[in-house]
Amino acid sequence: MTADGLNRRVLLVRRPEGMPVDADFDIEDAPIPRPADGEILLRHRHIGLQPSSRIRMSQLPGYAPPSPLRSVPTGPVVAEVIETKNNAFAKGDIVVAAEGGWQSYSLSDGSGVEKLDERTFCETHALGCLGSSGMTGYVGILDIAKARAGETVVVSAASGAVGSVAGQIAKLQGCKVVGIAGGHEKCAYVIERLGFDACVDHRADDFLDRLAAACPDGIDVNFENVGGLVRDATWKLMRRHSRVALCGVISEYGVAEPLPGPSWYEALVKRITIQGFLLRDHLHRRSDFLDDASRWLRDGKLQYREHITHGLENAPRAFMDLLAGRNFGKAIISLG
Amino acid sequence: MTADGLNRRVLLVRRPEGMPVDADFDIEDAPIPRPADGEILLRHRHIGLQPSSRIRMSQLPGYAPPSPLRSVPTGPVVAEVIETKNNAFAKGDIVVAAEGGWQSYSLSDGSGVEKLDERTFCETHALGCLGSSGMTGYVGILDIAKARAGETVVVSAASGAVGSVAGQIAKLQGCKVVGIAGGHEKCAYVIERLGFDACVDHRADDFLDRLAAACPDGIDVNFENVGGLVRDATWKLMRRHSRVALCGVISEYGVAEPLPGPSWYEALVKRITIQGFLLRDHLHRRSDFLDDASRWLRDGKLQYREHITHGLENAPRAFMDLLAGRNFGKAIISLG
Repeated sequence: MTADGLNRRVLLVRRPEGMPVDADFDIEDAPIPRPADGEILLRHRHIGLQPSSRIRMSQLPGYAPPSPLRSVPTGPVVAEVIETKNNAFAKGDIVVAAEGGWQSYSLSDGSGVEKLDERTFCETHALGCLGSSGMTGYVGILDIAKARAGETVVVSAASGAVGSVAGQIAKLQGCKVVGIAGGHEKCAYVIERLGFDACVDHRADDFLDRLAAACPDGIDVNFENVGGLVRDATWKLMRRHSRVALCGVISEYGVAEPLPGPSWYEALVKRITIQGFLLRDHLHRRSDFLDDASRWLRDGKLQYREHITHGLENAPRAFMDLLAGRNFGKAIISLG
Repeated sequence: MTADGLNRRVLLVRRPEGMPVDADFDIEDAPIPRPADGEILLRHRHIGLQPSSRIRMSQLPGYAPPSPLRSVPTGPVVAEVIETKNNAFAKGDIVVAAEGGWQSYSLSDGSGVEKLDERTFCETHALGCLGSSGMTGYVGILDIAKARAGETVVVSAASGAVGSVAGQIAKLQGCKVVGIAGGHEKCAYVIERLGFDACVDHRADDFLDRLAAACPDGIDVNFENVGGLVRDATWKLMRRHSRVALCGVISEYGVAEPLPGPSWYEALVKRITIQGFLLRDHLHRRSDFLDDASRWLRDGKLQYREHITHGLENAPRAFMDLLAGRNFGKAIISLG
């Protein structure tokens, strides 16, 4: 529990080597900040954990410069406006703040803060299937990979918050969809609940053979979340004119130096397109996404699962679980 | 000289390891083939050499299966129709045949054979600046990389048949264009004659520093012809949202196993797009290309250089020179 009248915060106190450990983080209770003119004070209700937060904990250049030590790890939150000196927000508004971070309160000048959309009928969905995770899947399949009916689409981290939506949208486009996930339980969920055509366990000894058997015509689209050995397995099966929607390389976030990628000789002769993308560059699609995804969700065409942990102090451990694939569904920290 | 009444042919008799050598090829004089119904007999006048012909000499999968031993290396030719059993062609027509190959005569059923376009006022141009080389540069800069005014475009193998056209078209788009070439003479030509803003000698000890100095804002577009270490140098300078028009990896054609490429972590966080392309997939742009390129050539806006070698028996040696960068301009074998 947060002590009354204090802002509980997770701090990054050491740069993790490989997988983060407890000692990389600290918890502190700081005074609740006061909004200046133009600012709002947010009380966080739910925090969305995402693997990409690992990037800024490292010294390697990422989407943005490395986070300073003793800063709060970034991440989107659902929050209530409890004090406002900004006319665009009223006290009591429920908002999504893209950079609220792993703490119980934050200030904002309103940039990156949106009122909870009326199409979001469950608050935590705004962090997952109707939030940045879901929209990343939407943009990746429709705008980046441009997956077409009849094509074979492979999605790694298929039971995760992004992959599960990406694969289901590909199914709605008429694609054949093959997931990759860790362990029997997740694979069963991906096939039975999410409706993928197949799902291959990357921990299986014969993973390569199973993936090849699941994609007898090769792969037209790889929605890439994992990188490393899982990516290498898909790469061998890429077809002529295939596309990679490069969304993440979770397995490579903890390394000291960037790992090499697949051969450009093969990208050349097969005329493969590899496109790194980040949701921030595609926000013009937000309303289309919310229209489509909220309808699919309502109609039961979009299945979704959350993995909720209570208490801010558990955020580091839940984050480690997420990076290690021990979560099952969108990882969320619920507060208070 | 070809013996009268015989078809002189170069044969691939051994798969080269790394750079091809004389013993990988043989020359034979075979009977001139006779056209069947629907076929034409072509007498070759000029043969265009291209680095990508190296690909099919290897055992590695390429654009097409490896060429059989004792087959004639492929390549486009300008030829005269000397006998026709195909109504689409008349005796005396001058044509470009995409797959005529390294020989003095060939048969065709007309597929991949086009009459010399009236916009081509010099026959050999149909193999270079107004042929597949030039059109590869055109498609790569305009359709693949979508280079825009003000962007920094780097072109490797900048004095070559493809690179020289790619860079000049990027200049015509209003880009800043930096070439990479081997040696002082080529670099001077690229700047003084082709009008690039800079050209960096990849043989210089301080190549990396020079390239960085020539691209102070980083690279928006890499028109990639070379691969390997030259590519690695450009990769470090790629900007956010930059694009690679992946046209060739000349330095990697002779290897036994595909070499690794750059890190997908970096492609991800910078949102880079890497797109392998092949002219064959973009032939719908042929008329646009011929309109534009012939006008630019006539108006002096497109400079162009040929490296002509006489005699079919010299094709293997000219090809080795091309792969080693010892040519200077479009490599052509002229016959008879």
